[in-house]
Amino acid sequence: MQVRDHAKTPHMQLLASFLAGAWSNGTGPRGKLVNPTTEEPVAEVSQGGHDLAGAFEHARTVGSSELASLTFAQRGALLGALAKAIHGAREELITLAIANGGNTRSDAKFDIDGGAVTLSHYAELGAKLGNAMLLGDGEPIQVGRTARMGGQHVWARRSGVAVHINAFNFPAWGTCEKLACALLAGMPVITKPATATALVTHRLAQLFEPLLPAGVLQTLIGPAGSLLDHVGPGDVVAFTGGSGTARTLRTHPKIVEHSVRLNIEADSLNAAILGRDLEIASETGALFVADVVRDMTQKSGQKCTAIRRVLVPEDKLKDACDAIRERLGGIAIGDPSREDVRMGPLATAQQRDDVRAGIARLAAVTESVHGGTGDVTPLGVPQGKGFFVGPVVRTTATPMTCAPLNEHEIFGPVTTIAPYSGDTKTAAEFIARGAGCLVSSAYSDDRDWVASFVGAAASWAGRLYLGSSKMAAQSPGPGTVLPSLMHGGPGRAGGGEELGGERGLHLYMQRCALEGDASVLKSLIGG
Amino acid sequence: MQVRDHAKTPHMQLLASFLAGAWSNGTGPRGKLVNPTTEEPVAEVSQGGHDLAGAFEHARTVGSSELASLTFAQRGALLGALAKAIHGAREELITLAIANGGNTRSDAKFDIDGGAVTLSHYAELGAKLGNAMLLGDGEPIQVGRTARMGGQHVWARRSGVAVHINAFNFPAWGTCEKLACALLAGMPVITKPATATALVTHRLAQLFEPLLPAGVLQTLIGPAGSLLDHVGPGDVVAFTGGSGTARTLRTHPKIVEHSVRLNIEADSLNAAILGRDLEIASETGALFVADVVRDMTQKSGQKCTAIRRVLVPEDKLKDACDAIRERLGGIAIGDPSREDVRMGPLATAQQRDDVRAGIARLAAVTESVHGGTGDVTPLGVPQGKGFFVGPVVRTTATPMTCAPLNEHEIFGPVTTIAPYSGDTKTAAEFIARGAGCLVSSAYSDDRDWVASFVGAAASWAGRLYLGSSKMAAQSPGPGTVLPSLMHGGPGRAGGGEELGGERGLHLYMQRCALEGDASVLKSLIGG
Repeated sequence: MQVRDHAKTPHMQLLASFLAGAWSNGTGPRGKLVNPTTEEPVAEVSQGGHDLAGAFEHARTVGSSELASLTFAQRGALLGALAKAIHGAREELITLAIANGGNTRSDAKFDIDGGAVTLSHYAELGAKLGNAMLLGDGEPIQVGRTARMGGQHVWARRSGVAVHINAFNFPAWGTCEKLACALLAGMPVITKPATATALVTHRLAQLFEPLLPAGVLQTLIGPAGSLLDHVGPGDVVAFTGGSGTARTLRTHPKIVEHSVRLNIEADSLNAAILGRDLEIASETGALFVADVVRDMTQKSGQKCTAIRRVLVPEDKLKDACDAIRERLGGIAIGDPSREDVRMGPLATAQQRDDVRAGIARLAAVTESVHGGTGDVTPLGVPQGKGFFVGPVVRTTATPMTCAPLNEHEIFGPVTTIAPYSGDTKTAAEFIARGAGCLVSSAYSDDRDWVASFVGAAASWAGRLYLGSSKMAAQSPGPGTVLPSLMHGGPGRAGGGEELGGERGLHLYMQRCALEGDASVLKSLIGG
Repeated sequence: MQVRDHAKTPHMQLLASFLAGAWSNGTGPRGKLVNPTTEEPVAEVSQGGHDLAGAFEHARTVGSSELASLTFAQRGALLGALAKAIHGAREELITLAIANGGNTRSDAKFDIDGGAVTLSHYAELGAKLGNAMLLGDGEPIQVGRTARMGGQHVWARRSGVAVHINAFNFPAWGTCEKLACALLAGMPVITKPATATALVTHRLAQLFEPLLPAGVLQTLIGPAGSLLDHVGPGDVVAFTGGSGTARTLRTHPKIVEHSVRLNIEADSLNAAILGRDLEIASETGALFVADVVRDMTQKSGQKCTAIRRVLVPEDKLKDACDAIRERLGGIAIGDPSREDVRMGPLATAQQRDDVRAGIARLAAVTESVHGGTGDVTPLGVPQGKGFFVGPVVRTTATPMTCAPLNEHEIFGPVTTIAPYSGDTKTAAEFIARGAGCLVSSAYSDDRDWVASFVGAAASWAGRLYLGSSKMAAQSPGPGTVLPSLMHGGPGRAGGGEELGGERGLHLYMQRCALEGDASVLKSLIGG
């Protein structure tokens, strides 16, 4: 039996951290990473005992000056090498993601390929930026009586350390998307994956280490401990995770004392709105159904961008529920290493418990469309094992005032579908009820409806995905983060901004207004 | 005698607040605003008793929809009307600034004209932006296999309230610079001047009220009280003031809970560096001396952008000190309503005490170049009255390790001048010792020196002013904030960004990535 085999494994792997140029095992008690399908341990991690002060010092001195000596093009070439390393170890990484993340093969590829694609995108951007030292921001400005007295905004590399605290759901992509922007901007990184799913990130750290200059990337595996006690005025902290931790970061004494730049991507109650012009059976209607179902089941709904709240015109509610129910019925849930399984477990026991609590809160005020409260008998899994929750669709007649729907992110395969009048004002108000989200989507082939919707909704989302028949055939869906488009959102979503091409570098740079002789300013940005 | 005359004044003016469409006197005990030259009371202000919840509700409903119905051009026209109102009441405003701010006539004009110029700048920007609803951010992006599947970043008006908390030193300019950006972006404003110097802002509120749509501008005169308890996810708080208050804002429960967007401009230890190529007697050397002396004496050194720390090449130290001393010797200090007086008192007793404490801290580790520790006998002022501190120049041989110099902002007519080797690395490191500043300046006609300096220093300042012979004749000096250039700085300076032309609107807007059919995206930004 599997459990016994694993328990017998004589040498449980201890995941070391890579800090100050060396692999550090840490000291003290050890925690266990488990396979969320079987609950068997897959690796161990120290709870502390690393020299974090030394890691910061290493980054500030060695790492920072290594990057200072490189052009954007050279930094981009490094990112290209990292992407290549991921491609070379793709099968191995997929195996680790299945074992430690509960990912299906498709889920694992989504994470791993997403990381590689993002690195490649920023590698290309680096080549484009070439050997500039300062990035120009906008056009020259006349600030004196004559054109001689000028102004020019620029972006300059910050001289501190970028601290990255990543979420459990994307151990590859999340790590790479933050890393790509920071390294290209010229800041050394100390990255910390979520401990529970750190196996993939640990392997990336091993793969990346020989490819990067000293001090440029350090990886802490295990609890953050006193990590943030070392940050100062020139540093950046970028965090992806839950709102509870986000609150702790915002009020951290060192972050407050030094106005440390803090980027947060937290909870997000992303909505999808079906326009009033569409039949479910239409091409755009089918895109809508496919996107809702994909976001529920891909990574078992553990995506910060997944659709949690759905509005459809009243007269389409039945058709929409039927179509979603039918699709979900065909999805096999169980051991994600099996080829026939389309959805695996949640990543941890804690996630399962949180999702179940969220479903209970929601179930108290909504009705079931599919899946009840998520009970499921997974395929190919030892009896009673694994952190499984089945796909759950709920419905409510009063979506605007349903607090458990609009105020609590359920980070799993759960969505709620509700009727509305079809007008854009209500649609935008529903999005606003989420108090700020990473992405929301609207599906319509009526351009006037779309224009009215965007005008009213855009300030509540970091991204608006506009589904239509024109793009249905090549759409990645709203749940896919793209390196060229900004990722982040206002309010509840944390108020951060990542990616978006060159915009993604700005978190790691300082905008500075240069003021003086216009010809000097021109020469400073290579003019 | 003046004191007695004022004490007899039968009707001391109570400064009302303009909230929810009406003037509100508030209730409870009253505080007094005084003339910092004579310490006589000039007006009273209630300590509370205003309906702040009502003010927020008024802004969110009436104010926000009034602005939503206006184009950028129409909002710009409103700003133009405000600028005109300031011009029309200029003499009256100058009189109030002299009486309540301790301003000389020149100081008062700097504040009041600065406000009007900023409003006019954004009025023109509004006209330029015309009737766009969304502002495009960058070029269209291809995100699918073909050009049909596209992305476009836009800036969208935020639907909440902008809360402005201003500093005592610029009751007109500070108010107008925040107001101009917020109103043009489309957000209603609740503004709160510093109580001690609120006379000018109160008069502006009276002048502006009849010119603006309902709910667009509300003014709270007096303590903030529970103001921030009402902020939510779509709101913005912009603060200018000391680091102590900044800390309180950063950790305010409502700001943390809702990820309220918070812009802070706080302490700043701005530096000025003389390049190694310059003689003090040269044109650029003279510009340097004039800028240092202006920043010490204009507004009695109470400018967030004033030069606090100066480096000159060792062999120029004596010349620089002599030149600065000579200039300062010719500046009369006293009652700022007198034409012969060039520098008035500090604005409040608290400021005088803080500055004196700062000088004492600095004097313990530095030597006097001019003014000792600031004792002065002001011209035309009743014996023992007024919050006066004379100009103080100190020097140290060890500027890099002088903590009272590099870690404490003395918000008055105080600067410290020190020798250095003349190399750009030391110059940039000295700027970095301030841990982030709003502006720093370097004076040199050697382009290579300037390029090397900018590359090393730009990440530690929101603005770098590059003094040279080419622009000396038309330079406003580093201490002048310009509407077209960003104002803000990293680290100790708060990490904020204001002004900078269209950049200044972004604090009040949400960046949103639109994703979909490229032709739809193009039409959404008016393409």
